[in-house]
Amino acid sequence: MIPGRITRLVHLFSRLPGVGEKTAQRFALTMTSNPDLAEALGTSLQELAQFVRPCDICGNIAEVDEQNAAICAICSDSRRSSTLLCIVARVQDLMAVERSGAMRGRYFVLGKLLSPLDGIGPEALPLDRLRSRIENDGVTEVIVATPTSVDGEATALYLARELETLNVTVTRIASGMPHGGDLEFADQITLGRAIDGRRSL
Amino acid sequence: MIPGRITRLVHLFSRLPGVGEKTAQRFALTMTSNPDLAEALGTSLQELAQFVRPCDICGNIAEVDEQNAAICAICSDSRRSSTLLCIVARVQDLMAVERSGAMRGRYFVLGKLLSPLDGIGPEALPLDRLRSRIENDGVTEVIVATPTSVDGEATALYLARELETLNVTVTRIASGMPHGGDLEFADQITLGRAIDGRRSL
Repeated sequence: MIPGRITRLVHLFSRLPGVGEKTAQRFALTMTSNPDLAEALGTSLQELAQFVRPCDICGNIAEVDEQNAAICAICSDSRRSSTLLCIVARVQDLMAVERSGAMRGRYFVLGKLLSPLDGIGPEALPLDRLRSRIENDGVTEVIVATPTSVDGEATALYLARELETLNVTVTRIASGMPHGGDLEFADQITLGRAIDGRRSL
Repeated sequence: MIPGRITRLVHLFSRLPGVGEKTAQRFALTMTSNPDLAEALGTSLQELAQFVRPCDICGNIAEVDEQNAAICAICSDSRRSSTLLCIVARVQDLMAVERSGAMRGRYFVLGKLLSPLDGIGPEALPLDRLRSRIENDGVTEVIVATPTSVDGEATALYLARELETLNVTVTRIASGMPHGGDLEFADQITLGRAIDGRRSL
């Protein structure tokens, strides 16, 4: 009873993160009653597929220029220090670090974390690209800002060991109590790390 | 820092029902890391805007044919009774009634409900189209399946009064206890309606 074009659209919408069959159908019906929005979103998505891709240098999202190169706003900003490199797992994490305003250097997006259970081993990490980036840019400090999850910590340790041979300081973001956090409700690992990582006042 | 194309896409995604800024950004980033999905969804949306529109007869969603007419699967199904007409508020409601399998007639999608607070008065309802549909199709019974909300009930009463002059029986869907409902937890209006609308066994 439902036209094939709607069924296909519902199927595509349901591939978005956190969108199930019901929500996808709701999205599709919104689109049928608002063809202008459908047209605009359709054009925008096609332009995205055509003109936006990961930055050739760091992996952040970037727009393709006339020479078919994609250099993001951070990599093309000459005021940023290129001796300080922050390694993140995903573009979302890069954006979060940027929002904090605490990072004045550049980035390197790994794209994935070590995860033996999912079959992601060391060979899946872009280590060669990272090494040549560090050597060519004259990086002096690498901040590993992978998440503080099991996979994130494993990846951080692996990177620290792999980068040992290079002439670079490898640091890890601090792990401890979040801002405004109540000690009573903190989990034991967080509190344990906060105590282990204590600093003199 | 974020490319303009992404910002525009986030803005468009956030116009979907129930999608806020954060979710829209998540959708947009999913799209940047999956250009094939972006391309497919973009094409699908543009086709939708071009080839799908409300059915010329009933308002259900329909695909445009070679003669630039849009007749839905229900209206073009000759096996369905055209003397029984079910009035619904939205296409979603039509789909819900269809799923029940209890309706073998045809439909009429109002598109809106009377809502004085939102400034939607009787002149906003497609009454002329409804009247001529009833007369031309030889409809003998109209089932008003607007929601059992305040606006839905008001619209049902208004339609019943307006259609009085036509040679047609106007009925309203039953209101009462939902299937499997527990009397203990039913609200008083629902239970009151269930008792008012009791039927002999």
